[in-house]
Amino acid sequence: MLYTPLLQQLMDALRCLPGVGPKSAQRMSFHLLERKPDAALALAKALEAAVTGVRHCERCRMLTDKLICEICASTRRNDSLLCVVETPADVYAIDSATSFGGKYFVLMGHLSPLDGIGPEELGLRQLESRLDAGDITEMILATNPTVEGEATAHYLAELARVRGIRATRIAHGVPLGGELEFVDGGTLSHAFSGRRDVA
Amino acid sequence: MLYTPLLQQLMDALRCLPGVGPKSAQRMSFHLLERKPDAALALAKALEAAVTGVRHCERCRMLTDKLICEICASTRRNDSLLCVVETPADVYAIDSATSFGGKYFVLMGHLSPLDGIGPEELGLRQLESRLDAGDITEMILATNPTVEGEATAHYLAELARVRGIRATRIAHGVPLGGELEFVDGGTLSHAFSGRRDVA
Repeated sequence: MLYTPLLQQLMDALRCLPGVGPKSAQRMSFHLLERKPDAALALAKALEAAVTGVRHCERCRMLTDKLICEICASTRRNDSLLCVVETPADVYAIDSATSFGGKYFVLMGHLSPLDGIGPEELGLRQLESRLDAGDITEMILATNPTVEGEATAHYLAELARVRGIRATRIAHGVPLGGELEFVDGGTLSHAFSGRRDVA
Repeated sequence: MLYTPLLQQLMDALRCLPGVGPKSAQRMSFHLLERKPDAALALAKALEAAVTGVRHCERCRMLTDKLICEICASTRRNDSLLCVVETPADVYAIDSATSFGGKYFVLMGHLSPLDGIGPEELGLRQLESRLDAGDITEMILATNPTVEGEATAHYLAELARVRGIRATRIAHGVPLGGELEFVDGGTLSHAFSGRRDVA
């Protein structure tokens, strides 16, 4: 037996969400139609509003409703510190967990020549002109600790070096609260080579 | 730091989906905005269309786009067999797994006096008038094997009994492919008391 067409369309459409398969889509559809039709309509409106209204900040490529995002527009943040991250989610994570009070630049990805993602796609021309402007004294490289993230960080560090700007990389090592026994070898090796004097 | 308002609204709206918490909502929002804006708009349209267009079948309370659902409208199905289930999902499950070729009646819940769900809320007046019409010879009770589902099945069986209609309950016992060792006690006890002669 087939689902009634509108229901089938809704289930197919829900599959665009990450981690939602046929069973979840069916469960979500019934849940929305039976219990939360108002919430479903509100979700439809929020989706439309976000897709049409959310854009990339013209300065840092962060997601925002305006031309320039709140962070870039803020006068209380330190303009001489620039933290470079891969995704908008990283900005939220860093800003809520650390006391970093500088500005950000969001690459929206990492260098990946095989996928056709080069410096142009990551907005590095934009980043270079910010570095050239001369306000920035330190660029903090907070790309992911993956092969591509490391390669991107190296590339960015070179951009800073030729301009005489200090480039720093966030520390890699054993995460807090874990047990050494269960930390992977690469991380442990990083933690050893990056050891520091006890103050 | 706060999310940009439209993004925050989208994340809040996604929380209406079952099993979606703050982290999933954030992941879904970024995924839709970055990678699948078209799919997000299609989802918005599908939600609106389904909420406004999907209704309950006037005969069996199944979800449908029309006044009378496909199953009730079908002339190839046996009108003398009626299977009573709790939810539309049960109809799809039974129809795709079994060879049942009769009609359905969807309660949209089960008797639950504490939650204010009585015979009226389950459309039992509608069901009684169908039983009174005289076409039905057997009513198959396929409510869930829970306390409320069993109570509902007992109530329905009584409706059939006073009208001289045969009422049957789907078999309870050990599920196929499992191991007896891991089957719960209640199920095992049901399986023993419901044992049948080997043909």
